[in-house]
Amino acid sequence: MSEALRQTIHQMGQQARAAAHRLALLPSEAKNRILHAMAGELRLRAPELIAANTVDLEAGEAKGLSKAMLDRLKLDDARIEAMAAGIDQVASLPDPVGEVLDSWTRPNGIRIEQIRVPIGTIGIIYESRPNVTADAAVLCFKTGNATILRGGSEALHSNQAIANALQAGGEHAGLPEHAIQLIPFTDRESVGILAGMDKWLDLIIPRGGKGLIETVVSLARMPVIKHYDGICHLYIDPAADLDMGVHLTVDAKTHKPGVCNALETLLVHETIAPTFLPKVAETLRAKGVELRGCARTAAIIGVAHATEEDWSTEYLDLILSIKVVASLDEAVAHINKYGSHHSDCIVTADQIAAERFLSEVDSACVFHNVSTRFADGGEFGFGAEIGISTDKLHARGPMGLRELTSYQYRIRGEGQTRGRIE
Amino acid sequence: MSEALRQTIHQMGQQARAAAHRLALLPSEAKNRILHAMAGELRLRAPELIAANTVDLEAGEAKGLSKAMLDRLKLDDARIEAMAAGIDQVASLPDPVGEVLDSWTRPNGIRIEQIRVPIGTIGIIYESRPNVTADAAVLCFKTGNATILRGGSEALHSNQAIANALQAGGEHAGLPEHAIQLIPFTDRESVGILAGMDKWLDLIIPRGGKGLIETVVSLARMPVIKHYDGICHLYIDPAADLDMGVHLTVDAKTHKPGVCNALETLLVHETIAPTFLPKVAETLRAKGVELRGCARTAAIIGVAHATEEDWSTEYLDLILSIKVVASLDEAVAHINKYGSHHSDCIVTADQIAAERFLSEVDSACVFHNVSTRFADGGEFGFGAEIGISTDKLHARGPMGLRELTSYQYRIRGEGQTRGRIE
Repeated sequence: MSEALRQTIHQMGQQARAAAHRLALLPSEAKNRILHAMAGELRLRAPELIAANTVDLEAGEAKGLSKAMLDRLKLDDARIEAMAAGIDQVASLPDPVGEVLDSWTRPNGIRIEQIRVPIGTIGIIYESRPNVTADAAVLCFKTGNATILRGGSEALHSNQAIANALQAGGEHAGLPEHAIQLIPFTDRESVGILAGMDKWLDLIIPRGGKGLIETVVSLARMPVIKHYDGICHLYIDPAADLDMGVHLTVDAKTHKPGVCNALETLLVHETIAPTFLPKVAETLRAKGVELRGCARTAAIIGVAHATEEDWSTEYLDLILSIKVVASLDEAVAHINKYGSHHSDCIVTADQIAAERFLSEVDSACVFHNVSTRFADGGEFGFGAEIGISTDKLHARGPMGLRELTSYQYRIRGEGQTRGRIE
Repeated sequence: MSEALRQTIHQMGQQARAAAHRLALLPSEAKNRILHAMAGELRLRAPELIAANTVDLEAGEAKGLSKAMLDRLKLDDARIEAMAAGIDQVASLPDPVGEVLDSWTRPNGIRIEQIRVPIGTIGIIYESRPNVTADAAVLCFKTGNATILRGGSEALHSNQAIANALQAGGEHAGLPEHAIQLIPFTDRESVGILAGMDKWLDLIIPRGGKGLIETVVSLARMPVIKHYDGICHLYIDPAADLDMGVHLTVDAKTHKPGVCNALETLLVHETIAPTFLPKVAETLRAKGVELRGCARTAAIIGVAHATEEDWSTEYLDLILSIKVVASLDEAVAHINKYGSHHSDCIVTADQIAAERFLSEVDSACVFHNVSTRFADGGEFGFGAEIGISTDKLHARGPMGLRELTSYQYRIRGEGQTRGRIE
């Protein structure tokens, strides 16, 4: 079985590579026509998708999946329409492929152009919601990449039905064969095979929990773009507008607590802690937020003591840890030590303090007087988002279409040689 | 021992991270002053460096290293001066850190800036020549990164002396402690420890043979930028200027056969093979190049038959494989299948054929009427080169200073929230 599985997945890799060569040459208009055809086919096949999804839902119920899990798994007409509309929207976005990033002429007359090209072949490994099948495949396709998808076992039939619809609908409009492939197995082993297949895959993007990402990172021979935790901070400077501080804290913590750009730790300068903490605590408690704090915080607003572990915990819940700091330096050092280099904010009217914070905090997104909830491809205006990278190479922070591309140097001349021609 | 080694290397990692936070804030002038101080210290310590190098050379001779190996290992006054002059030259290059890559304002008033920042901490694993110690550390430093170096065992004393000179000379001028560290062990194990240390290292660059790169790729948990083989092609189109074809073939094959941008396989269109092949073969043979070819090539110029293996071999020697192809499509397919996606060229006066070749060949550098030997950071005008990446993510092709940086989003506003403020 293991060898057969390996062969199947490697064959898919080889097919993806062949598709990628053809995808790279598709003009934008052709790609957009194909995207609309994919959306149309999803709408057309709604009954089929729902039937496939029912198989997964019934198996999930039998397996005892939680209500929340079953809800994430569920497809209905509205969700299928949302998926299709999302694809139509991706068609309307500008195509980054072919963009001239730079160009110059050397003294010897050779002309160098740096051109944006697709990455090639991308593996997406994901866990739960079946709509990721469409979202990820479509963003990769728009940028001229072939995808191999490996979804979670609970959604296998739903994912297969979606991938089939995208590929079949697209092919009518000129999509190359094997541009979008779904691995028809969900054995754990298939992750290892995919991650070892650097001959056929240029990039792997794991979308899911920390365990999945860790597994992929330890096995992958090709680049991985990781979307790890967001342990986000808000620092209230002595020169902060305290009302703004309350609003930003409440928004970043409570607007959507279960996402990676939500606030997890509040840092407050000691000179304003006695006035700010009671103010913010009142509003947060009214919103049902559990507060934990350092000894100084506890002395002011009477909260449970935060442990060392709290500072490096992504609660993803209505819990907030609070620490009183003696200086901007202490705030920056705390963030660089305990944070996840995702998104962190300073609230202040002092421009010098703000600029110091922005340049000293080593995170993908650093904010001055803006909620960390804006660390998001949509809010950045990217039109679509594949995720928020916590890596520093290739893509950092919100990843849009541009981050799904590579580049190539095209060099033109008239017979230039390095050596002398005899 | 193993645990002690692990602890030592992890401590170096932690120190590198602390140094990186300070390096990121150094202004360009300070960095350039430090670079000149490093160069000065190397010159001052020339006798010490030569003494340390003598220890390595004597051990190498005792171990029976080849003459060529011993020559690569050797340091003398001229080589030390060349290293120092190289550092002075890096000081004169523009600093990419702080460059504004993009900036825009969203309808809600938040202002987003994408700023070039250092990557952070970089591990360099290399094999032979001690000058890599200075070259790599200095390019990383210029871009605000801390480095951990792990050189080959034959050069340990030389590398240690160079790294000490750079760090000590730099510290007098304000270089943060631990900005440049060399692992004082050359056990194979240290590579694995370094590669697993993703908490402290943001990137690993292996510089050396395929075996070293493979080892690093299979162990690394952080991004790796690989500099694999160059299996470079030249395709002679029916519309080629045949004299130019000969000149480019000879230059790409013989100017410096032992490097990655040298030519390995010549593809010739069947319509011109009977006139071109005898012409090019005569010149190549006069230069001592051994020719191997497909059956059709052999029928025209009487060469040994190339095997399937020849098409995917990087000879790095005066050997050339030749294949007659029936079309541009066949040439492109051959290159995409057997090449290493490094550097490939078309020789033709036909603009349409040239543009098709440039967009269909999936390589880092694609050339029209230019020798593949120009795939080089220096020839591109980058001023310095850390290598030529065969990866597609982050850096592709010649890597200069810009490719040693990441970016950060800095977002400024006036209290914007995602949710409504109550």
